[in-house]
Amino acid sequence: MTTLTDCRAIDAGDSLRPLRDQFVLPEGVIYLDGNSLGVLPKSAAARIADVITREWGQDLIRSWNSAGWFHMPQRLGNKIAPLIGAGPGEVVATDSTSVNLYKVLSAALNMTADDAPSRKTIVSERSNFPTDLYIAESLCRERGYRLQLVEPGEINAALTQNTAVLMLTHVNYRTGAMHDMAALTQAAHAAGALAVWDLAHSAGAVPVDLQGANADFAVGCGYKYLNGGPGAPAFVWVHPRHTDRFRQPLSGWWGHAAPFEFTPGYSPAPGITRYLCGTQPMLSLAALECGLDVFGAAAALGGMAALRSKSLALTDLFITLVEERCAGHGLGLATPREHAQRGSQVCLTRREGAYAIVQALIARGVIGDFRAGDPSTGSGQAPSTSSWQTGSPDILRFGFTPLYIGFEDVWHAVEHLKQVLETAEWKRPEFNQKHAVT
Amino acid sequence: MTTLTDCRAIDAGDSLRPLRDQFVLPEGVIYLDGNSLGVLPKSAAARIADVITREWGQDLIRSWNSAGWFHMPQRLGNKIAPLIGAGPGEVVATDSTSVNLYKVLSAALNMTADDAPSRKTIVSERSNFPTDLYIAESLCRERGYRLQLVEPGEINAALTQNTAVLMLTHVNYRTGAMHDMAALTQAAHAAGALAVWDLAHSAGAVPVDLQGANADFAVGCGYKYLNGGPGAPAFVWVHPRHTDRFRQPLSGWWGHAAPFEFTPGYSPAPGITRYLCGTQPMLSLAALECGLDVFGAAAALGGMAALRSKSLALTDLFITLVEERCAGHGLGLATPREHAQRGSQVCLTRREGAYAIVQALIARGVIGDFRAGDPSTGSGQAPSTSSWQTGSPDILRFGFTPLYIGFEDVWHAVEHLKQVLETAEWKRPEFNQKHAVT
Repeated sequence: MTTLTDCRAIDAGDSLRPLRDQFVLPEGVIYLDGNSLGVLPKSAAARIADVITREWGQDLIRSWNSAGWFHMPQRLGNKIAPLIGAGPGEVVATDSTSVNLYKVLSAALNMTADDAPSRKTIVSERSNFPTDLYIAESLCRERGYRLQLVEPGEINAALTQNTAVLMLTHVNYRTGAMHDMAALTQAAHAAGALAVWDLAHSAGAVPVDLQGANADFAVGCGYKYLNGGPGAPAFVWVHPRHTDRFRQPLSGWWGHAAPFEFTPGYSPAPGITRYLCGTQPMLSLAALECGLDVFGAAAALGGMAALRSKSLALTDLFITLVEERCAGHGLGLATPREHAQRGSQVCLTRREGAYAIVQALIARGVIGDFRAGDPSTGSGQAPSTSSWQTGSPDILRFGFTPLYIGFEDVWHAVEHLKQVLETAEWKRPEFNQKHAVT
Repeated sequence: MTTLTDCRAIDAGDSLRPLRDQFVLPEGVIYLDGNSLGVLPKSAAARIADVITREWGQDLIRSWNSAGWFHMPQRLGNKIAPLIGAGPGEVVATDSTSVNLYKVLSAALNMTADDAPSRKTIVSERSNFPTDLYIAESLCRERGYRLQLVEPGEINAALTQNTAVLMLTHVNYRTGAMHDMAALTQAAHAAGALAVWDLAHSAGAVPVDLQGANADFAVGCGYKYLNGGPGAPAFVWVHPRHTDRFRQPLSGWWGHAAPFEFTPGYSPAPGITRYLCGTQPMLSLAALECGLDVFGAAAALGGMAALRSKSLALTDLFITLVEERCAGHGLGLATPREHAQRGSQVCLTRREGAYAIVQALIARGVIGDFRAGDPSTGSGQAPSTSSWQTGSPDILRFGFTPLYIGFEDVWHAVEHLKQVLETAEWKRPEFNQKHAVT
């Protein structure tokens, strides 16, 4: 049996432990929700105060030049690039993940419309993050394409001569299951389709190698594992072989080849800059840069490979402790045990009370979150195909951010879970009232 | 002749003068560029520090509920609404002006495609802010429409049975000329077209009455006269008669009827919420709210009507003083003298040296900006029609934000301009080197 002393010993030998000091971790909180909103980098408060009081307050309009505001999307993109296997000049931090997905999916459909007009299907995973499906649904309606939603095991079979684009999220938001990006990209290409990847739950959490996988397009999120702050701008990457080939429809002035010449006709900038649109929110970009700079410090300690080792050790420990200490309480495991198929989160399942258990844990300072087992039932609408699992168990979701979560944290989180289950604390009425937003 | 003493007397009698104390105005600077980037509200530094240290740092994910993050776009929209003649629940603060224009222009084209499919033209003004034209150009290419660019005097004649949408910016960014929104909207409707307005240079600067003008769609900017900070989120309004009728293509999860049910199919929220897309940048939204709250204070002092009177008095004074004190130096006036046709900026013209004069003024602490006279020459491309004025003079642009600019400021600005011209100070080499970004 694993003990608290064991966990403390692993922390003591953890070479990444100093990175924890770069973050504000609230007293009395074990934060296992960094997959939803990353914690505050200690550098951010002073940095944003300087952006506000000096760059905005004193230097005003001059800061577009003197503070480098105008090139923030590219500067931050270059700090994201090494985390996702992209080169310098290939990434920009801008807009939201949804808006960026619209850009790259539009560009991808423009490519296939030229190269293979008979391909009229976008293939994706039914349990992909809904906003990705909504954006794809919208583009399909606009352009006469079909969105084909399948289960993970059905993806390869769904790739046919009708497939224009395979659009997947690398790590599933509900289960923490991770796709094999290289293999699926290769399968898409073998079928003559393009591969679009959403890295929302993988950038900064697991090593990503877009160039190595030969992917075509990618987007990702700034406020989860990149610790960029609430609603931080997202990012977008396009393989250099495609960048200059197609326009994206959100052709605003920041993507123009000469934005300050104010010409009436649009001429896209070369490279990834053409994936910018309008003026970007500088305060939020500056906060994102603070989050990214911690990864600069992490690079000296082994970078994403070291973070990945620690992440797997954390999630392995959590699974082991739950199975050792919470057995007999009806918990299941939704996240794959195989390392190659696991992101940086562990999702437990339970037929009853998952929501209340999460609330009881939050009251104890252990912050994870709840996801309904079968999202198709939420709207009162019937599932669109028979392959939906009806009545599937709800999910208790716990994210383990290797930058700041320790092994002792994992011990205490499981101890709290054990107590909540053993005492039936979760049955209290206050833990069973749903909020409007969770 | 107007004297400095006169100007001080007007300031002393200005009932809006206390609003100036709500902003940080840098020592030694007369800031006449609030039409490009508004100044810093004094409340912003403490407010953002609280968002960072408490809402993000301590409360973390819980702030989506407890700090009201999730409904910030609507809350801020309701503070913008009274400035633009919109009702509560009709506006959201979100994304960039360019992205929002893409949404409303898409929705407008969807409407005409259903109601009047033979209408295939978007009419706009050739000197509209370029990003608006780029977005329209992109949608025209995607959907087989034509973008027809005309001079201001040609707009009415251009509205025909082929016109789907009239898309205009209310106050011209280069000249400060203001359109008659009610009359042009009526003309568009009389021709069977829809009217889309960009309020970038009018929201917070001049009274706008979208409902009174019976406009169809509007977008606007948060970082100019609304003082929301660099790259602050923009806003979008749709007349309630259209809101629920059409989808916009950027159908992300924040515009979903039940975003936290995570259903795979998109079901748009009722009302203006469906014009949201992805997760929004909270730090930048919080700063925008500080800017908007000053307008709450202004409401008690007469609101937009009082601000408009002061704005006209400021721009009248500037024109008068330039004509009295800078005569014989080759300056012209690009901004209309008629109040009904003037926004809150004054644009002077000069055949030679406009850029250097602006630089010399900036070196003296008088911050305005430069705009090339004929933007079509900047790209090296030939003008698309013969109606371009070739070789038109360059522009010196000065914005007068009535919230914080005083009449004595106007005096000193003109005095500096006079000295720069009389001493030929602007001919110094350092004022004639162009920066990459201006």
